[in-house]
Formats: sequence, C-alpha cells, structure tokens
Amino acid sequence: MSKYAFGIDVGGTSVKLGLLSVQGEILDKWEIPTRTEDGGKNILSDIAASVKEKIAEKGLETSDIAGAGIGLPGPVDDNGVINKAVNLHWDRVFNVSEELSSLLSGMKVKAGNDANVAALGEVWQGAGKGYREMVMVTLGTGVGGGLIHDGKIIAGSTGAGGEIGHIAIKTDETVACNCGNKGCLEQYASATGIVRLLREELEASDEDSIMRHTEISAKEMWEAVKKGDALATRVAERFGEYLGTGLSIIAGVLNPEVFVLGGGVSRSGDVILPFIEKNFRKHVFHACSGAKIVRATLGNDAGLVGAAKMVID
Amino acid sequence: MSKYAFGIDVGGTSVKLGLLSVQGEILDKWEIPTRTEDGGKNILSDIAASVKEKIAEKGLETSDIAGAGIGLPGPVDDNGVINKAVNLHWDRVFNVSEELSSLLSGMKVKAGNDANVAALGEVWQGAGKGYREMVMVTLGTGVGGGLIHDGKIIAGSTGAGGEIGHIAIKTDETVACNCGNKGCLEQYASATGIVRLLREELEASDEDSIMRHTEISAKEMWEAVKKGDALATRVAERFGEYLGTGLSIIAGVLNPEVFVLGGGVSRSGDVILPFIEKNFRKHVFHACSGAKIVRATLGNDAGLVGAAKMVID
Repeated sequence: MSKYAFGIDVGGTSVKLGLLSVQGEILDKWEIPTRTEDGGKNILSDIAASVKEKIAEKGLETSDIAGAGIGLPGPVDDNGVINKAVNLHWDRVFNVSEELSSLLSGMKVKAGNDANVAALGEVWQGAGKGYREMVMVTLGTGVGGGLIHDGKIIAGSTGAGGEIGHIAIKTDETVACNCGNKGCLEQYASATGIVRLLREELEASDEDSIMRHTEISAKEMWEAVKKGDALATRVAERFGEYLGTGLSIIAGVLNPEVFVLGGGVSRSGDVILPFIEKNFRKHVFHACSGAKIVRATLGNDAGLVGAAKMVID
Repeated sequence: MSKYAFGIDVGGTSVKLGLLSVQGEILDKWEIPTRTEDGGKNILSDIAASVKEKIAEKGLETSDIAGAGIGLPGPVDDNGVINKAVNLHWDRVFNVSEELSSLLSGMKVKAGNDANVAALGEVWQGAGKGYREMVMVTLGTGVGGGLIHDGKIIAGSTGAGGEIGHIAIKTDETVACNCGNKGCLEQYASATGIVRLLREELEASDEDSIMRHTEISAKEMWEAVKKGDALATRVAERFGEYLGTGLSIIAGVLNPEVFVLGGGVSRSGDVILPFIEKNFRKHVFHACSGAKIVRATLGNDAGLVGAAKMVID
C-alpha cells in the first residue's frame, strides 16, 4: 500500500509541485520555473530532477510512492498523449506519461489536461467533495473546464472534453473570439471578456461610474458591483446572462449534481453567484434543475491535488 | 458463459421484446400491447409473462440467460429507479430493475432511459459501432438523446443525461416549448418543430411551394427539399442552423467522436445532413471539430438491442 503521490501542475511561467499523502493531504509544496526556451525541451527533465531531489531530501522509499500525476496546459488524451501546448512552446504530439515515467526510472505517471485535473482535485478534496457528477468551469483569462463522471475525468476523444469556453452562446456576435469563431462563452464570461463588456458600456454613454475612476478589470468591476454601481451591475448582468445560459445548456446535456466555478473571476466572491443563478434557473430544463452552483475551494492547489489523485485509486 | 439476453423497449402503445445472442444478433422479436390503464400496473407483469413464455417456448436454460435489459420512456438513474413515466401512466418513483427481476424469479435486470438505451444499441451494433465516445440525438416528435462515454451510458445525476431537446438554443424566442421554457432545441429540430417552422414560412408570404399542395409534415418537407422547393429549403436551413449549432455546443462540452442521429426525422435520409453539417462546422471549436455526424442504422431495433447490451458485459 502506497503512502505518497506527487502532484505536478505545469503552467507557462512556473511548475507547481506537491507531495501528498494518498488521503489527499498536501505534505509539501514548491515551485520551479518553466523553462520554455528551446521548444520547452527542459521542462520534463527539470520536473523529474525536482521530484528525485524531493525523494532524496525526504528519504522516501520507492515502494511508498504511488506515482506522479501531471496536469498540462493543452489537450491530453486518456493515454497521456499531448497534442501540442502553445504556452510551453511544445509543438509536437507525444506521450508525456511515458516520457516523464522514463525520466523517473519507471515511476507510474499519468498526464491530463490542467483544467480536467483541477476538476478532479475539486471533486476529491474541494468544493465537489462527495459528488460523483460534476462540471468545473474555470473563469480566468479564458474560460476552461473539466468534466467529472462517476468521480473520474471525461477527457473526450481528443482531450478537449470540458473545453466549454468556445461553445457558441451568442450566434449573432460580430466580434471574433481568439479561436476565430464568434459568440464563444469565453467572450463574455472570462476576465478578458468582462473587460471587453466594460469598455463597451463605458463607451456607450457618459454615465458616471466607479469604473471611470479605477483600473478596468474584472476584479474592480465586482468590487464596484458590491458598492451598487449601476454600470458595473449591468456588465455583471450580461456576464450572468451568458454564463447562466451556458451552464443551463451544459446541465441539459450532462445532468450534473454540481457546477464548481474556479479561476480568478470566481475569487471575487459569492457576489458573482446570483447573476449566474438567475439566468441558469430561467433556462434550465426542469429535470436538470437540481444542479448546484458553487465556488471552488482549493484555489491554486486544485491542479496539484487533482494531479496526485490521478495516480491514486 | 451466458448465450442469450432479452431486450425490452417499452413505449406508450406497445412493448417491443427481443431475444438476442450475447454477440448482438436478434434471434427473435415480438410485441405486446402496453396496458396503461390502472396507472400502468400491469405493464411489468405483462412483460414478465411474455419473457417467461418465450423461455418455455424456446426451451432455454436459466443458466444460458445473461438477463433482461429494459428501456423506459422516463428518467432512470444508474440503479434502475424511475422517476415517473407520463406515457406509461406511472406516477410513482420505484426501482424497475428490482421489481421486474422479482417478477422474473430473480433474473438479472437492468433498466435505463429509452433514449440512452437506444444510444447503447447504436454504439454496440449500429452506426456508432467501433466508437467509444458517442452522442445520440433522437429527432422524433420531440428531441431526445443519449450519451455514451467509454462505451457506456452516462445516465446523469437524475437520469436526465443527454436529454438535449431542452437546451436553450435561441434565447430571444417568444413561443413557449412544452416544457415551459422558450427557445429549446426541440422547438426547431423535432418533427413538431419543423411543422411549426413550416407554418410560419407559409403564413409569412404567398410564395408558391410544394408544401401548399401536400400534408404539412417533416417527412413531406424533406421530400420537397429533395425536389428543390425554395420554401421547404428555407425551413431546412433553419432546422440546420439550430441543430448544427446545438451539436457544435455539445461537441464543445463532450468532445465525442461521433453524433448518431436517430428518430423519424433522420429517416428522411442523407438530405438532412448538409444542413446540419454547415452550421456545425461554422460554430464548432477546432479541437472538437473531428466529430462525425451520421444517421442511425438500427431503426426501431435500437432500443431492444441496447437494452439487451445492458445485461451483457
């Protein structure tokens, strides 16, 4: 019976690593820089060196280690094959699990998409604890997500399961999304989308608003909403309209028990929830209306916690 | 090793039953009426009597029978609990698997929602054969569906997984759907929805059309489209716009390998596909764009084939 697992969460600037007990307690966590130069060729070897160093430092026995799970910013299929990762400067298709395992002298390694892995973390130890059917929605610079069915990740056929930022939520949109399509959920429900909506509202009139005297950001907008600012509240309504409708559609497809909202926007607090709830209730099919909408609780640890869970069963 | 399984597909007017080999061949199939009187209290006992009769008629050994799977028109959870079934006049919540099993002297019984079970049939022996990640969409009087992940049904937390007819696809719709919401996919992509769109087009102008000289039905509309009728083609475009967009959204959530279209509307032939494909391609996220869209091949047998599959593993 293994006692420990490593959880690794790879981002574009740093890699978060954690040593966890198989019960889910974070025993140690640390970071190393993500070296993206030379096509990111050092990233996995840096990670392997750091894990080996920790094993030596703690004097761990190989037989006590369940393995290492790794979350990556790109589509990863069930076998651990990643199909490029722009933020890591990886432009090839290769099996991350096999490559990292070989760098770790054959240790069991499982790789997953970072949003999916964070979802697994939240369902294991966070806001989704106790649920089996969960959808995580990450509201950050973009909108991502992860699907949990029967307690496990649904990766999708090409690793893009739960990538709900690009579902078409407003088919008459004229502005293009980064992906090239128009009317993607991400254009309204991400931090970037909120800033875009804010600028639209600010340009549409001369109405005074807190937002004319502060930084134009999603964070400041939610602060202004808390203070009753009318213009900021209208933007929050639009955010809620698109996100609430989007969640109602996902509920109609998957019939989950709970939506867990993570990412920077969710950290503005429970102030965001009524705007989403109202529109969710308006559009959701009655048979799927039992789904709760809550905020994530693991913050930046969700990725490494979920990564560790992948190798613990 | 079992040799046979029973597949049962319960509809509002008749129950289709099949005796299948565990390899998926239909060895015998027959129907009995669905007796909905007295709150449908005879339905399961009629089914049990018919199954027992078939066992006697064929001289089957109990040990050769894997069990009986049953598809029902209502939400059924993973344990076989149905939460009412309006078409069967069932207004209680009870465990169908346990009740039918007890009527069949303890035979293994598994119950599922009819649309989910049909999806399982198509992925086992029909248009989805060879795929593991499939979404079935049933275009009939209403729009239903079933989700297959890793070859198995995703029932959802309350048995409403894949009930995609009521996802909000047009949020500015003024006409209400049967479910009470407005702008549900079913309002445009079902046979009933097509008739509604046809009537709108016919009333909007005096333009001549084949549809002014024939029955106003989805079937006749597709015949008119095949003959190049302009008005019918405009309705087909609207059908395709909403269904294609809907499938693009589902693709963005689940990232399936294939969509299988079943139900009466799909039987009008491949003429329906380009209208759907065009809008699907327009809105789908590139990472999920590999999903194929095909028509179901099992027709009315999908339900009993999938039902049998539930007890074969």
